Amino acid sequence: MTKKQTLACFSSWVLAAGLWAQAPSPTPIPDFAALAGSSNLAYERLSYLCDRIGPRPAWSPAYARAASWAAEIMKQDGLENVRLQPVEVPVWERGSARLLMLQPTQRELPVLALGGSVGTPGVEAPVVVVRSLDEVGPQVQGAIVLYAFPMSKPQDYGAGSRIRSQGASRAAAFGAKAMLLRSLATASLATPHTGMLHYEEGKPQIPAAAISQEDADWIARLVSSGVIPVLRLELGCKTGGKTLAHNVIGEIPGEKRPEEIVLLGAHLDSWDVGQGAHDDGAGSVHVLEAMRLLKLAGVRPSRTVRAVLFANEEFGIDGGKAYAREFGAQKHIAAIESDMGGFLPAAWSINAPPQLMGWLWPLLATTSLSARPGWGGADISPLASQSVPLIGLAPDPTHYFDYHHTNADTLDKVNPEHLQAGALALARLAWVLANAPEVK
Amino acid sequence: MTKKQTLACFSSWVLAAGLWAQAPSPTPIPDFAALAGSSNLAYERLSYLCDRIGPRPAWSPAYARAASWAAEIMKQDGLENVRLQPVEVPVWERGSARLLMLQPTQRELPVLALGGSVGTPGVEAPVVVVRSLDEVGPQVQGAIVLYAFPMSKPQDYGAGSRIRSQGASRAAAFGAKAMLLRSLATASLATPHTGMLHYEEGKPQIPAAAISQEDADWIARLVSSGVIPVLRLELGCKTGGKTLAHNVIGEIPGEKRPEEIVLLGAHLDSWDVGQGAHDDGAGSVHVLEAMRLLKLAGVRPSRTVRAVLFANEEFGIDGGKAYAREFGAQKHIAAIESDMGGFLPAAWSINAPPQLMGWLWPLLATTSLSARPGWGGADISPLASQSVPLIGLAPDPTHYFDYHHTNADTLDKVNPEHLQAGALALARLAWVLANAPEVK
Repeated sequence: MTKKQTLACFSSWVLAAGLWAQAPSPTPIPDFAALAGSSNLAYERLSYLCDRIGPRPAWSPAYARAASWAAEIMKQDGLENVRLQPVEVPVWERGSARLLMLQPTQRELPVLALGGSVGTPGVEAPVVVVRSLDEVGPQVQGAIVLYAFPMSKPQDYGAGSRIRSQGASRAAAFGAKAMLLRSLATASLATPHTGMLHYEEGKPQIPAAAISQEDADWIARLVSSGVIPVLRLELGCKTGGKTLAHNVIGEIPGEKRPEEIVLLGAHLDSWDVGQGAHDDGAGSVHVLEAMRLLKLAGVRPSRTVRAVLFANEEFGIDGGKAYAREFGAQKHIAAIESDMGGFLPAAWSINAPPQLMGWLWPLLATTSLSARPGWGGADISPLASQSVPLIGLAPDPTHYFDYHHTNADTLDKVNPEHLQAGALALARLAWVLANAPEVK
Repeated sequence: MTKKQTLACFSSWVLAAGLWAQAPSPTPIPDFAALAGSSNLAYERLSYLCDRIGPRPAWSPAYARAASWAAEIMKQDGLENVRLQPVEVPVWERGSARLLMLQPTQRELPVLALGGSVGTPGVEAPVVVVRSLDEVGPQVQGAIVLYAFPMSKPQDYGAGSRIRSQGASRAAAFGAKAMLLRSLATASLATPHTGMLHYEEGKPQIPAAAISQEDADWIARLVSSGVIPVLRLELGCKTGGKTLAHNVIGEIPGEKRPEEIVLLGAHLDSWDVGQGAHDDGAGSVHVLEAMRLLKLAGVRPSRTVRAVLFANEEFGIDGGKAYAREFGAQKHIAAIESDMGGFLPAAWSINAPPQLMGWLWPLLATTSLSARPGWGGADISPLASQSVPLIGLAPDPTHYFDYHHTNADTLDKVNPEHLQAGALALARLAWVLANAPEVK
């Protein structure tokens, strides 16, 4: 889940499914829960992905292993046309990081470079604290700028991630020497959260890193009381070149309208810290398990259901863009993404052309989850220009940003039953859409 | 709060104050809440201690600043006989720390050296996982031992801290190369928790560090599935020599029995990470604020109330031992300590000779807090040999071990009203004990 998710992702109206008339599906929905059986293959697979493959930025050897592993699973489960789609991705290496307070006391503070940051052997400067992009001005000349944006709830992520993305260039334009970000989080135990930044062309590129909410608030309190801390930031980051990663694609070809596609997607890459358990290992195994269950149903759907595990959502959405370039002209009747964690499913988050809602609405209702207008998903977002309805699986968001992009995004944070419920929801919706009457 | 706290500290029976007959105090208890006024001086002082002085191991310049600051406050508040008692303390410097997984994947893991650990330029070895001291045997020869003790609730801390203290020597006796500990915590966001270890004489001294619960559980899962991780631990720790720190002492001399002492204590030192907000900045300002309120009451108590802010609880209880050596022969009728955090007061934790309970019982009841047998406090524990009743202020323990000994033990974790409630509780109990009828 990346920066483009906004307030709409986790708020606005929610319609209880119970309010809708239950529209009959032309083909009865199989009992996917019964097909899943007593084991929890989604969780077993997530365990392997987290514990044995681990964090997997798109440019890493771990990502290549993850892609091979996922393709092998798709084949084992009987999917067809299993293939790896090449995706060119940028390379970025985190290296070591150190943040020292030099004044008024000497301390080392937990820190994580922001993804894409340039390195620095060491930059020392006093701190200027701001809370938004708009507050940046000539006062940051020669300073380390701390964006102390007060994220406290999931809905704040959209505004916060804009600061993470644009804050370095904004500050650099006014002569700042480095950028620090109060971590975008809903809970902290001195936990820094990474995430991607974007350098604007033509602006100086300054090093950028996230610090814990505790330390950001401490520095802000010092400044409020008239004490200006002096910090030293050392980052071993290296940006350079491109490499090849791969989207992993597999299908259950449709019986009657094989050229019409229902896409089930998630991103297989993760940040290079933690295990990428909720972001987006959970989504990846949701998709694998939903496809397995659809296949197990033993009845071909009318339309083709296509699973796509995308490369490099975290550092440029390159897999999503490559997919749209190569396959965007095909007839996608819907694209469904799971990239909001492995918590208990709560709703569908819908980004669809209004004229398609009359068709989509009763179909969503058959899945027993509520729906709301909102974000579909980063990887499927390039399909929006083809007027494809984008549908995000939106689980309970309460704790997602406790773990997101940190060393704490690990297997132990995932409840196996909640994870499986997500896979079942995807299977049901994919089934209903793949067998729905003609799009009106 | 240090390793000697055991299960009894946070469990066993609790008597609701409402069950007791309200024993009349010979001198009415002043309205300390009214005396405190609308400001929250305890919180203001804790803010200064955390934000401006910061973490303060007894051997650090920050501790010396904290001691001067506390003595100055005692004088400002009108305490008498304010003095610094010299305490010899060992010196230990954390230096840098790095833990790398080399196999089956390459990762850097969050780590904190255990207090007192020897350094190492780098030790590499496969991991052997155990869950208790008893499981250590010849199988750890040449390995890095991970004690994956499954702490999940405050009551587990006693057993866990014995492992932290004794685990290195136990493992070294069987030829282990280093010791790792699953952090002693009730919550984790990839958060390592430090704390003191003890090397047994005559055993090899091996480096020792704490890792996050997430990583410990991951390593344990790998081992369970037949994969033996290889780790590399680098610690820049340095142990060496002694230095002088000071207990900070101030008094309100008693009117009628000045030679009888009610001690109010906390430890002023903290670990060298975070801000030492709950452990034990909260206790320190509890004591300062209680003394200020007792003084503001304008009526001298019958007995002397003595505040003692102890040096070096965390790394050897040297302040408590020095106090007992120099003043233990004086007549202490009770010693009260606050070293279980700044949360909402819940109970008194009583470690007293049974024959004194008939006297103590109705006095405790007047404070409107329940009481239970348990731990009094580390710093006052050396007074137990003089049969002094030891009384610990026991706040709500739910979140104490979320923050304890980590970078997350910071001011933002302290609720100002809960903090002040602790100071009021101490003032009331000190008043009641100082004015109570003769000890029977």
